[in-house]
Parts: sequence; structure tokens; C-alpha cells
Amino acid sequence: MFRHDKRLQFEAKPEKPDPLFARKLQELIGGAYGEMTVTMQYLFQGWNCRVEGKYKDLIMDVATEEIGHVEMLATMVARLLEGAPAETTAEAVKDPAVAAVVGGMDVQQAIVSGGGATPADSSGTPWNGKYIVASGNLLADFYANVAAEAQGRLQTARLYHMTDDPGVKEMLRFNLARDTVHQNLWLAAIEELKEDGLAGTIAPTALLDEENQEHSETVWGLSAGGAAAQGGWLRRPAPDGEHRLRYLDDPEPLGGPASAPPPDPKLYGTFDGAHRAPGPRRSPTDRAAKTVE
Amino acid sequence: MFRHDKRLQFEAKPEKPDPLFARKLQELIGGAYGEMTVTMQYLFQGWNCRVEGKYKDLIMDVATEEIGHVEMLATMVARLLEGAPAETTAEAVKDPAVAAVVGGMDVQQAIVSGGGATPADSSGTPWNGKYIVASGNLLADFYANVAAEAQGRLQTARLYHMTDDPGVKEMLRFNLARDTVHQNLWLAAIEELKEDGLAGTIAPTALLDEENQEHSETVWGLSAGGAAAQGGWLRRPAPDGEHRLRYLDDPEPLGGPASAPPPDPKLYGTFDGAHRAPGPRRSPTDRAAKTVE
Amino acid sequence: MFRHDKRLQFEAKPEKPDPLFARKLQELIGGAYGEMTVTMQYLFQGWNCRVEGKYKDLIMDVATEEIGHVEMLATMVARLLEGAPAETTAEAVKDPAVAAVVGGMDVQQAIVSGGGATPADSSGTPWNGKYIVASGNLLADFYANVAAEAQGRLQTARLYHMTDDPGVKEMLRFNLARDTVHQNLWLAAIEELKEDGLAGTIAPTALLDEENQEHSETVWGLSAGGAAAQGGWLRRPAPDGEHRLRYLDDPEPLGGPASAPPPDPKLYGTFDGAHRAPGPRRSPTDRAAKTVE
Amino acid sequence: MFRHDKRLQFEAKPEKPDPLFARKLQELIGGAYGEMTVTMQYLFQGWNCRVEGKYKDLIMDVATEEIGHVEMLATMVARLLEGAPAETTAEAVKDPAVAAVVGGMDVQQAIVSGGGATPADSSGTPWNGKYIVASGNLLADFYANVAAEAQGRLQTARLYHMTDDPGVKEMLRFNLARDTVHQNLWLAAIEELKEDGLAGTIAPTALLDEENQEHSETVWGLSAGGAAAQGGWLRRPAPDGEHRLRYLDDPEPLGGPASAPPPDPKLYGTFDGAHRAPGPRRSPTDRAAKTVE
Amino acid sequence: MFRHDKRLQFEAKPEKPDPLFARKLQELIGGAYGEMTVTMQYLFQGWNCRVEGKYKDLIMDVATEEIGHVEMLATMVARLLEGAPAETTAEAVKDPAVAAVVGGMDVQQAIVSGGGATPADSSGTPWNGKYIVASGNLLADFYANVAAEAQGRLQTARLYHMTDDPGVKEMLRFNLARDTVHQNLWLAAIEELKEDGLAGTIAPTALLDEENQEHSETVWGLSAGGAAAQGGWLRRPAPDGEHRLRYLDDPEPLGGPASAPPPDPKLYGTFDGAHRAPGPRRSPTDRAAKTVE
Amino acid sequence: MFRHDKRLQFEAKPEKPDPLFARKLQELIGGAYGEMTVTMQYLFQGWNCRVEGKYKDLIMDVATEEIGHVEMLATMVARLLEGAPAETTAEAVKDPAVAAVVGGMDVQQAIVSGGGATPADSSGTPWNGKYIVASGNLLADFYANVAAEAQGRLQTARLYHMTDDPGVKEMLRFNLARDTVHQNLWLAAIEELKEDGLAGTIAPTALLDEENQEHSETVWGLSAGGAAAQGGWLRRPAPDGEHRLRYLDDPEPLGGPASAPPPDPKLYGTFDGAHRAPGPRRSPTDRAAKTVE
Repeated sequence: MFRHDKRLQFEAKPEKPDPLFARKLQELIGGAYGEMTVTMQYLFQGWNCRVEGKYKDLIMDVATEEIGHVEMLATMVARLLEGAPAETTAEAVKDPAVAAVVGGMDVQQAIVSGGGATPADSSGTPWNGKYIVASGNLLADFYANVAAEAQGRLQTARLYHMTDDPGVKEMLRFNLARDTVHQNLWLAAIEELKEDGLAGTIAPTALLDEENQEHSETVWGLSAGGAAAQGGWLRRPAPDGEHRLRYLDDPEPLGGPASAPPPDPKLYGTFDGAHRAPGPRRSPTDRAAKTVE
Repeated sequence: MFRHDKRLQFEAKPEKPDPLFARKLQELIGGAYGEMTVTMQYLFQGWNCRVEGKYKDLIMDVATEEIGHVEMLATMVARLLEGAPAETTAEAVKDPAVAAVVGGMDVQQAIVSGGGATPADSSGTPWNGKYIVASGNLLADFYANVAAEAQGRLQTARLYHMTDDPGVKEMLRFNLARDTVHQNLWLAAIEELKEDGLAGTIAPTALLDEENQEHSETVWGLSAGGAAAQGGWLRRPAPDGEHRLRYLDDPEPLGGPASAPPPDPKLYGTFDGAHRAPGPRRSPTDRAAKTVE
Repeated sequence: MFRHDKRLQFEAKPEKPDPLFARKLQELIGGAYGEMTVTMQYLFQGWNCRVEGKYKDLIMDVATEEIGHVEMLATMVARLLEGAPAETTAEAVKDPAVAAVVGGMDVQQAIVSGGGATPADSSGTPWNGKYIVASGNLLADFYANVAAEAQGRLQTARLYHMTDDPGVKEMLRFNLARDTVHQNLWLAAIEELKEDGLAGTIAPTALLDEENQEHSETVWGLSAGGAAAQGGWLRRPAPDGEHRLRYLDDPEPLGGPASAPPPDPKLYGTFDGAHRAPGPRRSPTDRAAKTVE
Repeated sequence: MFRHDKRLQFEAKPEKPDPLFARKLQELIGGAYGEMTVTMQYLFQGWNCRVEGKYKDLIMDVATEEIGHVEMLATMVARLLEGAPAETTAEAVKDPAVAAVVGGMDVQQAIVSGGGATPADSSGTPWNGKYIVASGNLLADFYANVAAEAQGRLQTARLYHMTDDPGVKEMLRFNLARDTVHQNLWLAAIEELKEDGLAGTIAPTALLDEENQEHSETVWGLSAGGAAAQGGWLRRPAPDGEHRLRYLDDPEPLGGPASAPPPDPKLYGTFDGAHRAPGPRRSPTDRAAKTVE
Repeated sequence: MFRHDKRLQFEAKPEKPDPLFARKLQELIGGAYGEMTVTMQYLFQGWNCRVEGKYKDLIMDVATEEIGHVEMLATMVARLLEGAPAETTAEAVKDPAVAAVVGGMDVQQAIVSGGGATPADSSGTPWNGKYIVASGNLLADFYANVAAEAQGRLQTARLYHMTDDPGVKEMLRFNLARDTVHQNLWLAAIEELKEDGLAGTIAPTALLDEENQEHSETVWGLSAGGAAAQGGWLRRPAPDGEHRLRYLDDPEPLGGPASAPPPDPKLYGTFDGAHRAPGPRRSPTDRAAKTVE
Repeated sequence: MFRHDKRLQFEAKPEKPDPLFARKLQELIGGAYGEMTVTMQYLFQGWNCRVEGKYKDLIMDVATEEIGHVEMLATMVARLLEGAPAETTAEAVKDPAVAAVVGGMDVQQAIVSGGGATPADSSGTPWNGKYIVASGNLLADFYANVAAEAQGRLQTARLYHMTDDPGVKEMLRFNLARDTVHQNLWLAAIEELKEDGLAGTIAPTALLDEENQEHSETVWGLSAGGAAAQGGWLRRPAPDGEHRLRYLDDPEPLGGPASAPPPDPKLYGTFDGAHRAPGPRRSPTDRAAKTVE
């Protein structure tokens, strides 16, 4: 069960409105790597976690924090939209800066939300449940969490340069810091899984003996004349400590032709017409006689 | 530019049809972590790569391989569907095993594709471009690639136990191996980035000095009474070697209340009706007189 | 900011697993009117609320409760999936009841989530942000909230008869009660808005004097010979107390033809080819001579 | 069966083109609460209506009207786009007003539709079937209809202030009036359902005796220190006349911990690696010897 | 403007219920090539048509017919669902045929629609506006219409064999006939466009002289060893009468390498970390001293 | 299996950056009729093709070419974005031309992709698998391919006029030519199918004798007073040579009323409340006494 405190986790006060930036911030709310994603990803991972104790509790700690991040960003957006142009184009367009705003602002923040945030990204694409992963396997999911925090921090860093507003920048500096903590945290949790004997390097740490070992170390060189064969990845043991990567230059296919068997005739593959007699089936004139008109 | 060889990268021949498994395999074709995802993710990363040479070439090598994996799986699905029930339920249902198939098969593989694969997952949800990430930052993207290969291998491992067919299992053993190679490869590429001085541990490796350092090491304990404070993650330096994680038990919010300013009156926030005179605006009877009927 | 308590708001313990019902419960998690919808709808409404005090606080109270409902349902799903068939069809299908389960279960709960809930509905369609509304106008949004709770309670009532499990039914009885409370609550809040002079009956309570009053009371009878003219809605004042509905039988259109002007020629409407000279533009043979082969 | 009259239900003639407004109008065509939504919502409700007579006929009357509203809006959009910039940016940008248009117009209206409307909203998100509801329960659906008309009228009211064009405003005044009629109508139909003994206040009007009555009157105070306890909703009988709402301040969870049982080992929860022997499984060097290169 | 007649265009009465087939019919309602698609495709094409007269009127004739086809199918689905299992699995599963139904039926038709059709396809994916095309160019759109009717007729033909019900088959025989008429009609309309001098064979019939004519006749042989060079397409003039197709065996790329320029440094491409000093930036211990705990 | 060549199929070098055009080009990458669509459509058609030899090989030739077209466009986008505004609005907006760019550019190309292309269209809607068709019936699919190439060429032609850049125009001239080739090619392949006796004109060429022939030649005149009856389509034999189209003016429906049967009572159609006793079920006061507070 959850409880709510009316105060924000961290302050979210812009010095002045900026409707164009309000649109860009939507990426951090409802984008594929926005705060709605990490909120839902960690909540579902926590609920789906089968290891009671420190791992599950850690996931729920961070998940609960992330709901508050959506709150901070939604509040920031509403404040950035204060006094945003809601009138006719002709009146609003006084100078190029206003023109840029009128052209570039998120019109749904006005028409649909009345000056508030939407659960969508900076192009207006709605957030959806496929953005998250909660597989029930902690190693696989912690890799995904590192990746999500990395993309989130990258987008925040880009947005950091798209504003001069001291209040906005202060909030973004907090967000950057949290993304740093969380990247460190999920990387540390991966180490912990290994120390606890719950995981190796490859996720899942299973079926390594059953997989086709002829093909578990080769880099297939399918992009002609590439420099991939010069990477250090071929000179050291693989990260899992159990393999050594090798480069196969211009390899040949190992399978037969990619043919497909004939389907059930009632599914009407291409040959469906072949069963008909060749001549004209019937006379249009004949049938025209019996039509209802 | 690309070229195609008619032969499959690896054989994809089932011993006998299995329409129910053909549906499940759709997850590996058009699911969020299926082969269409890694194909498109690596292609767009390669095209978006700003570091010419070994990194870009490696990405294009693997991307090109993955197109061939979609091909293998699509071929396998068509073969698993050979002779699948395409008739009436009454005829088809002879015993419980057939009933399970009739109930559980992907009806769009029959109605829409005529016995072939669809660009969708095992629930029929179409693949979409939001499944991929190509940020232009190699560290952030390599983390995402590890995560994608991990989920892909996990799903393959689960599917491996849902079939007894030797031909299907042989292909899946190949797929498992490739997922192992690719996980090792992207992890190795992350190490290489660090050695080449192109990245640190945190993505992006920038703005660490500008972010709010008061908040770059704390785990906020927001899930009451949790065991997260007992994790080894608090006892060792953080993975980036520059921070040390600390646990804040039951922390207080640092911001003010999450209030939102009044919007432009023309956006009709709640107070829109307050401007009207209290009495009945007009008499329905009055207007009824002038209606067109 | 939010805090989490490890205990569920209400117990969610099935007596025994039921994978088929676990799929159906997904509708209440990630369906258009499931708990993710009301969670996000109320959160965004609360953050977008411009009337500080009782209204905003009420919305946040209910929003916070709803996150806990998603938690209850996700926990229930994981428990209903305990021991669900994860093997081959042939082994699993022992009798018709198992066949129904094998055919009807949500395969992504196994392949993707490893035996847990997904942020999707009972057909596997992912939840998305367009399911919610947070317009910034409380009257309009409270109408939407009543509607959401009504659909939610209706679906819960239907699901209530699709299980015999005492533990599941106990949880659903709790859910039904909460849906009743919330319907009453939003209906009461609408009354409160009226009493506080913040809204009328029509949302938004504005522009009533500017709208085209010739057309603000007529029911257009466009479905021939219908009985709609016999409804009591024509015999009493309209619910807003300011209009009286009237029936227009077989009305005529008031506008002109639905024509569209010619677009810019560079957009290539249909006439694009008319500008070309009539004769054969060039000889294929001529050009064949200069081709690179 | 349907029939079409070439004339518009109401005139849709702008005085002059306005491509920026043409984009905004898309919200009323293909937005979540646009005319495509009410068209399809009422059509499916009508076809799904199990009460023959006045209710079903009323729904079909309004549904049929709404198709004509999409027609009016699509016609208006085509006319607003007459002469819209279809050339290079450099040529088009003469002054800030044009810059706003070039920046803010819907580029798909030009590239994809050649100067016409699209079945999408003002951000280009395509309309989809999840926007509608047709549950087969008239009370629940009429609540949804009131909500849809309220959001539609609210968005229309906002758009009304974003244009000065007399022709556009005249059409919008008609649309506002129709939204008022329809809100009144669905509210009246709810009253009629009650008078006919077909419904109560809570939808569905069933299972009230089976639901958990301990929890059918309490407002859970989960947002700390809130003013929700001061609302008039606690001082009067609930709208259904059968309950009285009460406020539970800072309530405790009633369930146990949100734990999840271990899944089938073949689904590879986190412990999958625990079954392996601790030492290095095999020597990379050994295998390197047998590789094909 | 539209009008509705309560009678169906053609009868839609099954002899007996069949919930499994009711799910499959959803493909013809809300699938990518179902009746909702052709309805909306033709409506938007008609409204977007810039050639007043026979073409526009024809499109509106067919569009209006198609709304009635959705009506027929939605009615058929409701009737096929009469008495569908709405109870517990255990009770419902009496024999394999019932098991197939319980496993394979569309659970949303019960839970969401209460025994009615949904605006979705046979996998539950909601219909969306991207399924349609209305480009404003009649030649391009008529090609799309032929394609849509062809896929629609193909799916109907497949479904025709999946039922034995005389009533269902009678309706499908009508649908097949209408799809035949419409294919003929759009093909005839293409001929008419040519005769009226409004179009050629290639859409759009413009820019043929500006396009790169070195490359307007070659088939690039990129799939090694293929038989495409043996097709009759190379032996006759191309269908537009102005080109002659030629086969380029194993062609070489004509462009340079697919490189991308360095982005703005503030977008944090990969080199972002390179600007930092190599050594440890600061001591974790130092900062630990000043943390708030 | 596929192989990659680092060189582009054709050059993709703009003379100078143009971020606004970079957004518009997204339509050709990830739009419904962009290069991702034809790539995936042809790949799945090839893999699903049941006629080994020239047809399948042709499809794979063209499919393989199209992957390279996505590559060309993605490269072009990255180059058009070189130096795109990535800073604050205030700094960027120097003049109206810049304002148009700032307002109209694709912000996700900056925030999400770091100056690269996204797998989305010009409104930011992600590409999805429903854009393609691969039915297993070559006639039906070749019609769809003609339609796709026609829309693609139309959009390319429109974009051709939206830029003055010689490098961009050179690439578009190549693209236009390829779209011409491919339209000719699929039209020629349709002729070839007919000559090979594999198809007729109507797809599928089956069930023509079983369909309802009373209704296989009539154009239903449902749009009052239309000119469709004057089209040449009624004066000549239908394109399939077996029918003759006729016009039915103002036809009557042939079916009965569109009624729906009562659903299972447990699905709670509207009558659910009718079973309850009329009086007040219980006293709120009574229950208030036993509440937990």
C-alpha cells in the first residue's frame, strides 16, 4: 500500500514560464525512458520479485521514489505553462521568439490538459506498457534498469543545455544526481547477485551447457571489410570468464534455403485460381438478365 | 547496402508441425525483445554511430546477422504451421490436445498470413519502433544492448522447455549461443570504450561535476521497514569508483507543496462557471417559441 | 512524494492457482478501465488541479489508494500462476480442463514475465496513456471518473462470476465495494462543485450564451422510424434546468455540399498528370541504349 | 444500413485559410474525445444495446449525427489548408507569423493527405478503438457518454478562443450547442433508466449486497494532512441514497505482505544459476582448440 | 450528413451461437483490412477528393455502404455470442469442444463488451487510424482500395471455411460478392481516370522527367543466384508503356560510406567523457563527510 | 542470410543542414508508407511465399534493396541535423527562419537520438508491424505492393518540392525512379501471375461461384443524388471480364432489424438492477454503527 506526502521530493520551481521547454520535458515524463517508465518498471519488478528481502525491498524503495519524480516533472510542466499562448496565432505572434513558441509548443497541453502535463512524450506519443520490463529474473532486469537509467540521464543531460532557467536547471541537477545513484545502484546489485551465487554474467545463467557451443564465441563478420576484427574484445577473455570471442570473416550460411511448405488449400495461397476451368466462367449478359434493379 | 543469400544462417526445420508453439515463437520475432527489435536497434545505432571504425563496424556486423535471425524464425513458423487446423471447430476438436491447439493458436497466422509469421508478438501486439533505442551515445546504447540480449536469451530459454521437437530445439540451442556471444560482446565493448577513454561507468560520462552532489550517493528508503539497507551495495565503493552509496531511512521531502498555478481563463479551468450571474440565465419557454420544428 | 508499506491494502490470496483466470484479471490491471488507468488518471488530475484544498486532496487520496490496487492485483496474478503449465503441449494436455487452460492462458505471463503480471489487458494489449483524462476542469473530469469507476465495477462484477475460488472472490468483493465508494464520491464531488458555485451541469459551464441556441435543444431524428421521440427526456426540463429537449423528425442538412478546394499543385492532387503533353514522353528504346548494364 | 446526403449538417466555411488552426482542429476529429470517438462509441453501443426501443433508437440517432460531425470537421480542415505552405522553408518564412505556421502546422496533412484531414489528433497520434466504450450496460455507458461530451465541449471551448475567423467560430458555436444537447440528453437518459426501473445510481446496480460492506463507505485518507475530510461529501447521504461516506484518516493496510511464490524452475527466476557447480565450468582454451575458423 | 435505417443491408442470422467464430469475425470488423478500415478509408477519401462529381460520389456511395457492413458484422457477433460461457472454467469445461471454446474465445467480448463486438481484430489489437489512406491523389488511393478489397476478400474466403453454420455462410457469401464488386469497381475507376486524362499508370503521374532515369528501369539483383532474372517482366514493355525493365546482377553500391557527422557536443555523443581529466575526480570519502544523514 | 556493404546504394549528401526537412524526411523512413514498411512487407512476403522460384526471388531482391533505402535516409537525416539548434530557445531564435526551425523540428531527433533518425514518422508516431501485409497470396499482396509504392512515390514527390538543396534533391530523384521501377514491377508481376495461370483479376481467384451472385455486380447508390451512375464503369465490362457493374439507385435494405439477443444475466446487461426489491435496501445509519474507524 502507498501513502502520499503533499510536498515534492525536490523543488520544481521555474523562474519564468517556457512553453517550448514544457513540451520537451514531456520526454522525461512519458517518453520510453521517462519517469513513468522507471516507476512502472520497478513497481512490476518488485511485485514480480521472487527473492524476498534486500533485493525486493531495494526495488520497491526506488520504485516509490520514481512516482515522486513524475510528480515533480508534472508540477514543473504546469508551472512552465503559466500564461502560455492560448489565443489566436495572429495575436500571439509578435516576434520570432513567440513564433518559435507558437510553432513548437505541445498543443495538447493546452487543448487537452488545459495547461498541464500529459502522459505522453515530447512528440505526443502516449506512454505504453511495452516500455517496461519485469521478467522475474533479477539479473536480466537489473541490466535493463542500468540501461533505462543511462538513457534517462542522457536525455536529462541534453535537456540541461536547452534551458537557461535557474529553477529548471536546479531540478535537473537533482535528477542527474538521482540517475547517477541509480545507475551505480543497479550495477552494484548485479555484483551482489553474483556474490550471493544467484547469477553469473550471462542472463539467464542457465543452459550454457546445452546451448550450441560451436557458435557461442564467434563474431560473424557480415559487414564487408569491417574493422570489428581489430577490437580489443577479441584479445581478452570474454567478460563472463568462460568464453573467448573470435572473428569469422565473411562466413557462409549453415542452413538450407528459406523455403516454406504449401499451406492448407483453404487458406488460399497463390495457387487458388489454378483449380478453375480455363474458359470464361459465365456470361455477364446471362446474369444481367436476372438482376434486380 | 545489403545483399541476401537464400540459405538460412542456421537450419530451421521442425520434425513436425506445432501450431501452438508457432504462436509462442512470435514472441522471438515481433516481441519487445525479439529479433526484429535487435535488428532495428543495431541498424539504427550503426547508422547513428559517430565513431567511425571498429565500434560502428561491430554494430553493423551484428545488425546484419540479426536480420537473418528474423528470417530463421519466420521460416520456422511457416513450417510449424503446415497443416494447421483451418476448418470448423466442430471438425477440428477430436481430443483435448487438438482442443488446446484450436483454443491457443494464433488465429491471425491463419486468417491474415495464410499460414505464415506475422510482425507481432505472441499476443498479437504488432512490433513498433519504440522497442528500440539508438541514442548516439555508445555507452548508453551498449548497456541497452546487453539488456536486450539478456531478455532475449531468457525468453529463448523459457521457450526451450515448451517444446520436445528435436529440430526446434536444435535451432533454439543455436539462438541461445548467439545470445551468449552477443551479451559477452556488448559487455566487452563497454570495457573497450573505457580503455579507449571514450566513456566511464555512468552514462553519459559528463555533468558529474554539475549534478547535485548532495544527492548523488543516497538510497532513499521509501518502502517502510525494508531490508535494502542490508545490501552489500552500501559496504563497498560504488561501481563507478567515485561514489559510495548511503541509505537514508524514511527521508523527508525537500520541496514545497505540489501546487499548480491558475491557467489562462480561456482554457476553462474549474472556475469557468464563476463568472456567470447566479440566476437562471434564460427561460427555456422563451427559446422554445423561436425553435425551428 | 510517496511512501510504500509492504503490506497489501487488502488480502489477495487465492485458494489455488488458476492460470486462465490470471489472464482475465489482466483486464483489471492494464485494461482501459483497469487500476493502472484510475491510478494515472487521478494522479495527473491531482497534479493538474488548480483548486487547492479539499478537491485536490481528495483526488490525491484516491489516486494513492489506486496504486495499491494495482499492487493487490499483480500479487494475485503471480499467485494464480503458481505452477502454471510451462512445458510442452503434449505433456500438459491431460484432459479438457487442462486443454482449456493451455489454450486460453496468457502466454506472455510465462514467456515474458516468468509467471507474473504484465502491464497489459486480457488480450495482451499494453496499457497506454490515452486511457486517462486530466483536463484541468474538475466538472468534466469528475464525470469521467464516475464513468471509469462504473466500467471498472461492471468488469469486476462480470469477473466475479467467472471464478469459484473463495480467496479471489473475497478480494473482488473488496474491489466492488471500493468501486461503489468511488462512484458515490465522484458523484458527490460534482454536487459539491455546484454548491460551491464552481460548476453547473454542463461542462464546461461557460459559453452557453455564445453557443448557437437554435441548436442547443434539438434531438436530430436521423435513424428512421425510431422510438427516441417517445422517451421521457422530451417531457421534462433538461437536467441543466435551462433547456428543454425537442425531437426533430427527419431533419434536413443546414450546410452546403461537402466540397474541398483544390490543393497546392505541388501536393499532386489527382490532376497532376494533366499538365503533361499527351504523346509518348520518350521512347523506351532510346533510353535503353544509354543504360549501364 | 446508412444513407448519405451530400450537404453538411451545418456550414463549415472559414473566411480564410489557417493551417495552424487546421492542425489544432485535428483534436476534434481524431482525438480521444473527438468526433470519431463519439461516432464509433455510439454506433457500437447501439449495436450492442439489448433494450429494443427508445434507448437503442436514441443512441442510433445521435450516432448517425456524429458521423456528420466528422464530415463537417474534415471539410473545414481541407478548406483551412487551402494554399498552405508546401514549399521550402527559406521561401516560406517571410515573417514571424509565417514562421509560426511553418513550425506549427501538421506536416502530415501536407505530405500524407495532400492538404486534407487525417484520422489522428493534434499531435498526429492515430485514432484507435480503445478510445470508445460499449459495455452492453446502458447506465455505465451513459455515464461514459456524458463524460465524452463534456471533454468534447471543453476542448471545443478552448479552440473557440484560438481563432478569430467568423466562419470557423460559427461552426464551433454549432458544435458547442450540440455538445450541450448531448450532455443533457445522456443525463436525462440516466434519469429515464432509473424511472423505468432499469438502473440505480451505482453501475452496475447489482452485487451491492455481495460486496464487502465494511469497505463500501470509507474514504481512505492516504495523502497526509489532506483537506478531503472537510468536503461536504461526508456531511450528506451518498448520491445513491444507500450509503454515507466516512473518512478514514491514515488507515492501516489490511492484507499481508505482497509476496510472490516461486515460479516453475523452467521459467528461470533469479535462482537459475544456483544449480550450477561453483568452479569455472570449462576452460575457454579447451574450447578454443575445437573451434571452426 | 448521414441517415440510418434500422434494417440491415443483408441478413446476419447464425443458426446457433459459436463464440470461437465470433472472435475470428473480429478480424473483419476491426482488423487492418476489416470493414472499419474501408469505411474510414473511403469516408476520408471522399471528403478529401478534389474532383467533384462522379469520382467523389462513387467513393461516398461505397463508403456509406461499408458503415452498414460493420453493422452487419457487429450484429452477427452479438448473436454468435448468445449464451457464451461466462462462468468458471471448471463448470464450463465438459468436453474438448467446450475446452477449445473456453481457451480460444475473445475474453474481452465478455468482460468488456458484455457479449458484443469490439472495435478490435481477432487478437484484440484495437483498430487505428493508420490502417487507412486518403492521400488526395485518386490514382494512388484507388490502387490502395483495390489492395484493401483484395485482402478483405481473402480473409473472408478463409473464414468461409472455418464455419459450417448456414446463416453465417449466407452472410459471408454476400460479403464475398461485395468484395468482388468493389475490386472490379476500383480497377474500373483506375481505367476511367486514365481515359479522362487524369492519370497515367505510375502514381503520381508527375516528375517522370525529373526523376533519375538511369535508375528507373533496373531490377537490382541483390538476392544471390535468384531466378528473378527469368521472369516475363523483363521480356515485355513495362506496364506504363514507357519503360522496359532490366536486371542488374549483383550490382555495386553507388554511394560513399554511410558515415554520420559529429553532433553538437551538448547532445553527448560518445566522446562526452573524453573532456574530463583522467584521474579520480574527487574522493568519495571527502564527500561522505558532508552528507546529510 | 544477409550481408552488408558499407557503401550506400546511392549518395545521400545534403549541401547544408536543414533540421526542418530532417523531420519531414522521417515520413519516408518510419511512416505508414515509408521504407521501413516496404522493407518489412517484402521480407515477410518473401519468407511467406509458397511459390519457389522467380516470384519469391524477385520479392527478396526488392526487399534487400529496401533495407538499403532506410540506410540512405537515416544517413541523410543525420547529415541534415549537423549543427541543429540544441540550446535554449532564447539563444536560438535570431530570426523568423530560425524560429520556424525551432518550432518545427523533431525534438526527439535531438533529445532521444542525439542528432539521428528515429524509427518513426514525421509526427513522431513510431513505425509498427500493422503497416505491412504478407498474406501468402501473391495476387493480393502484389496489389498491396503497387499501392505502397504509389503512396511512397507520391510522398516523395511532395517532399521534392519542400527543399532546394541540390544534394537532397539528387537523392530524391533516385528514390522517385526506384518507386517508378517498383510500381512497374509489381504491375508486371500481376500480369505474369495471370499468364502463369496462378491468378485472375479478383483476389483471391476462388469462391466466385459460391459467392452471392445476385450481389456481385451492383453499385449501391447510398449517397443521394450522386453522379456515380454516370461513370464509364457502368458502360463497359468489369475489369475481370466476367461481370458487368450496374447502379442501384436508392436501394432498400435486405435484412431485418439490427437487434441483439439478451446476454447471459451474469454479464450484467442493462436489466441487472431490475431483480432487486424496490425499497431502500438497508439503512446507511444501521451500517454506520458497525464501521471500523
